[in-house]
Amino acid sequence: MSREAKFSCGRDYFYTSHLYDALSESAGQGFDFICVNMAGPRYVRGGVCDNTADKREEPMSRSDLTLSTNDWNQLIVGKISSWINLEHSSKKVRESHEKAFYEELSYATHLSIPAVLVELNSSDCENLSSSLVAYLQQTNQHVWVKVPLTYPLNKEYSFNIEEVGREDPWEWWTKFYALCGCNKKISVVLEIGTRCVEAMVIDRWTGEPVKAYSVSTESFSSNQKGFPVLNKSTQSVINSLFKLNCQGILTGTNHVNKLMGITTYIQYLQHLWSIRDNESPVREFARGYEDFLQCPLQPLQDNLESQTYEMFEKDPVKYVRYEEAVKQALLDIKERETYQGKDVVVMVVGAGRGPLVKGTISASKATGISVKIFAVEKNPNAIITLRNLNIKEWNSLVTIVSSDMRLWTPPELADIIVSELLGSFGDNELSPECLDGAQHLLKPDAISIPTSYTSFLAPVSSTKLYNALANCVDPSKPAEAPYETPYVVYLHNVYLPAPCKPLFTFTHPNLQQNSNERYTQLQFEFSQNSVIHGFVGYFSSNLYKDITISIHPTTYSIGMFSWFPMYFPIRQPLYVEYADRVLVNFWRRVGKNKVWYEWSVSSPRASGVHNSGGKCYSIGL
Amino acid sequence: MSREAKFSCGRDYFYTSHLYDALSESAGQGFDFICVNMAGPRYVRGGVCDNTADKREEPMSRSDLTLSTNDWNQLIVGKISSWINLEHSSKKVRESHEKAFYEELSYATHLSIPAVLVELNSSDCENLSSSLVAYLQQTNQHVWVKVPLTYPLNKEYSFNIEEVGREDPWEWWTKFYALCGCNKKISVVLEIGTRCVEAMVIDRWTGEPVKAYSVSTESFSSNQKGFPVLNKSTQSVINSLFKLNCQGILTGTNHVNKLMGITTYIQYLQHLWSIRDNESPVREFARGYEDFLQCPLQPLQDNLESQTYEMFEKDPVKYVRYEEAVKQALLDIKERETYQGKDVVVMVVGAGRGPLVKGTISASKATGISVKIFAVEKNPNAIITLRNLNIKEWNSLVTIVSSDMRLWTPPELADIIVSELLGSFGDNELSPECLDGAQHLLKPDAISIPTSYTSFLAPVSSTKLYNALANCVDPSKPAEAPYETPYVVYLHNVYLPAPCKPLFTFTHPNLQQNSNERYTQLQFEFSQNSVIHGFVGYFSSNLYKDITISIHPTTYSIGMFSWFPMYFPIRQPLYVEYADRVLVNFWRRVGKNKVWYEWSVSSPRASGVHNSGGKCYSIGL
Repeated sequence: MSREAKFSCGRDYFYTSHLYDALSESAGQGFDFICVNMAGPRYVRGGVCDNTADKREEPMSRSDLTLSTNDWNQLIVGKISSWINLEHSSKKVRESHEKAFYEELSYATHLSIPAVLVELNSSDCENLSSSLVAYLQQTNQHVWVKVPLTYPLNKEYSFNIEEVGREDPWEWWTKFYALCGCNKKISVVLEIGTRCVEAMVIDRWTGEPVKAYSVSTESFSSNQKGFPVLNKSTQSVINSLFKLNCQGILTGTNHVNKLMGITTYIQYLQHLWSIRDNESPVREFARGYEDFLQCPLQPLQDNLESQTYEMFEKDPVKYVRYEEAVKQALLDIKERETYQGKDVVVMVVGAGRGPLVKGTISASKATGISVKIFAVEKNPNAIITLRNLNIKEWNSLVTIVSSDMRLWTPPELADIIVSELLGSFGDNELSPECLDGAQHLLKPDAISIPTSYTSFLAPVSSTKLYNALANCVDPSKPAEAPYETPYVVYLHNVYLPAPCKPLFTFTHPNLQQNSNERYTQLQFEFSQNSVIHGFVGYFSSNLYKDITISIHPTTYSIGMFSWFPMYFPIRQPLYVEYADRVLVNFWRRVGKNKVWYEWSVSSPRASGVHNSGGKCYSIGL
Repeated sequence: MSREAKFSCGRDYFYTSHLYDALSESAGQGFDFICVNMAGPRYVRGGVCDNTADKREEPMSRSDLTLSTNDWNQLIVGKISSWINLEHSSKKVRESHEKAFYEELSYATHLSIPAVLVELNSSDCENLSSSLVAYLQQTNQHVWVKVPLTYPLNKEYSFNIEEVGREDPWEWWTKFYALCGCNKKISVVLEIGTRCVEAMVIDRWTGEPVKAYSVSTESFSSNQKGFPVLNKSTQSVINSLFKLNCQGILTGTNHVNKLMGITTYIQYLQHLWSIRDNESPVREFARGYEDFLQCPLQPLQDNLESQTYEMFEKDPVKYVRYEEAVKQALLDIKERETYQGKDVVVMVVGAGRGPLVKGTISASKATGISVKIFAVEKNPNAIITLRNLNIKEWNSLVTIVSSDMRLWTPPELADIIVSELLGSFGDNELSPECLDGAQHLLKPDAISIPTSYTSFLAPVSSTKLYNALANCVDPSKPAEAPYETPYVVYLHNVYLPAPCKPLFTFTHPNLQQNSNERYTQLQFEFSQNSVIHGFVGYFSSNLYKDITISIHPTTYSIGMFSWFPMYFPIRQPLYVEYADRVLVNFWRRVGKNKVWYEWSVSSPRASGVHNSGGKCYSIGL
């Protein structure tokens, strides 16, 4: 699942009758593909297409023999004729245009070209969406819909949320894509002008299926050396789209410097790509898993496999923090009046293959405080590793206990209990239930590492995540299950229209035996119109005192890769206006044999309760 | 979908406590993987395994840290302890063995090793199959079941069909695999001895999921130069298994020549691989598509795409035969009394992108007989190609007709009608209906190319094909549809227990307007016990006089790749004894808008009618 994104840019030709030559020329200039009209321009007659395939003597377009299937399939984007207007008020014209539309689409599919390009010029798109979706039902053809970033494209622009309304192209697209039923075969080509736009204008598009940006040579100006350059705002827009691995399309002709050809434009875009925001270590680790929905692990119910342990043990941050926390706890115990130089009893519960045992041994060595370690683990396969390690590396000093921590009767009680039972949403791997069940192992003043953890929630806009749900069908579950189940996912093609808020907190030891059920209602304010597709979840944890680990976006433990965020979908995408408040309700429910979450939206429009009674998803106790 | 099979051979170790060293050693000797016991031998005590994961102080096996996940995952096959006997008469012993069995399986899954090896030593396998299938439901673990080719393995052997019965290991496997519900995660390792076996003994295994062969160094003898070699019969068995891309497993120690190490054995097997039966051109073309079920094309209902035309036009045999047939027909017409030097009218119906037009022009040039060509095609996208070709290559001499051949009113009548409307089963792309519908285009003495075609049928044994059906679920069709639908497939891991017989024949012109409905009952005799999973279909066609094309195995047009065979499944695998006669009924039904096949078995046991009324599969008219 690992593949590095590459810079890619195509050239937009209006029409060429010498396709092979155009392709050779543009390849020589450094372009990766070209965009050409599907049909010849002579087929427009007075705005009415009166050609039918049956009567014409001349061919509608160039022959498929002009290129090999391989070339059609990799190098050509086909533009649907721009004179085609499916919203025309005349029924006769509209029907004639629809016929031409299908002819061009059908020929594109015949040629196996990877995408056809359709322009969206206003919010009037009822017939376009209906005709397009009807066609897509029969084929695997992909369609790129070209939408301007702003309207008009190039006039000086001040984003005023209250005046935008129907003339905001994002609203055109949102209506069009809703009419198309969020069809996966449809993507966006964003047309970029020279206007300066605020960050929020482009941010909103980062949750949409944007595949390419289109920029005209007219948008470039000449720098001191005579080379074409873009203004800061446009650079920043393109940089945002590079994060989505968007390809470029260059339209227009060379005008900046006649001596230096069109190649200088592509070189400039390539330069922007090469200096784009650097990859983070986690992004590197997650490559290939962007927006890929995964079922959350259930380490309590299922035994983890060797390769899962192996991967998590490589986390460069988590175990350093844990060792630091154990060290601090040992030093604090040493300061207690009750400490008389005896071995501090440390129980590692859910020891897995022993990384926390190793950390405890190191902490003991570093502080000079001697410890007695019990490693409790319920997975018999990990027990084999622990026993081998105990013989070969730990000098048989660790007591290996093959048991569920909740069921074990200890020979003595613990001063410190160390566990790593946290999931992406904090409590979702049942850390609260396990640690509460292990409280009989503790001395009254025992320290728990971690001491507490909190889950966080934010609304999310992402057609990519929402569309991926349709692939998550499980015949053994209710039909709605994909839409009422949380997933673990590395977020990529998403937009968070409002900041995270804290949801549930758990602290340990839980001496009052407080219930682990929870209910919280959260309110989110929106700064602009958005379509939300659910909520994303994070956690942070205090291991001990001020030593924390976190995957919350603003307190993230940089370099830590053990957890991706959670995604809680909603059944229907929810259109939210900028003045709306979104109210969401979250429950954590605990049954006899399982734990589950339920969620619902109560404002601006009420949704049904998702995963009611744990019917679609639960975590086995 | 293209990947060349590679020689691969593993080494079987009984047990090694130094796994890393064993792996290095065997890699140095040229082995690709090793087979080692899952648990240490010390864990057998008096035939009873009294170890429980909870109480043992010592680890059951070596640590998972011994190798990286990558190495476990690619280089290790884990052998389940051979003392484990799940059919033991004592309940206590059986339960204890079952516990050990699950422990070893579970540890194998923990390690992500690609396969565990289990031995099948008799037909008593009720508990083994039950325990194994229960485990496989929870994991993606693959299991290799080792079965001897003959029993006993090495005694001199004469295959007597009537005496075999329960002591035939193929019968053990057949029972075991049926008890396992033909589970896809289970494959066969065939243990080969030194017995001479008849071809039919190994042939029967070519329909089973055989992944590897196992051969002992004891089976090798020394040649004149002191190198280890196998006898002719064993060579031939291994050669048959190479066709299924089987891997090797070498057991035992070097005994032939102490000076030359174990490497000489693997070199010998590699030598056998290098001289194995050569690939045919069709096998080359079909690589990656072996046993891959495809929906038959419906060129009448759907328009073919450019890449499909492109691929079929490359057939090195088909168009040569067609051109020869047109030549012959032209020469025959010239001999007629009615011929007066006028242009012979040739209509190419279903002209596609024009390969038969091209062939007709060549035939005209070669014979010096002038022709007038009409190219009739219903696909508007192919019409674009034909019109471009007519302008650029055919000097506008061809009349391009954009119409369904059944609906077109011609300006004059044809002397010759040429079509290529045949499918893998001959008539299954509705050539009979199309050509009958085009008879109004013909002069009374017109010649049809092709003149006739016949479908052929044979019973097939192939767990691979049968298991692939489960992946062919279409939610818009009845649940049983995958099992009552024909497929196009390149046959590979299959066994044909009886020769092909002719089924339906069609001739053209069909001046009497005979119905295209058909019913035929075929009878097949079996030479040995087999399990059949349906029927395979082929066709041959007389284009004109003695010029034929055929995909029937014994009259195959060598090098022709345009058609793979058909596979007609049956719902339940059918066990057939060698004396049984199999009676199968096939219908071709014609409705108003569709054509379909129905089939049933009436002996040795009756099946239901498959695809009754075309409920699962039909061809649109």
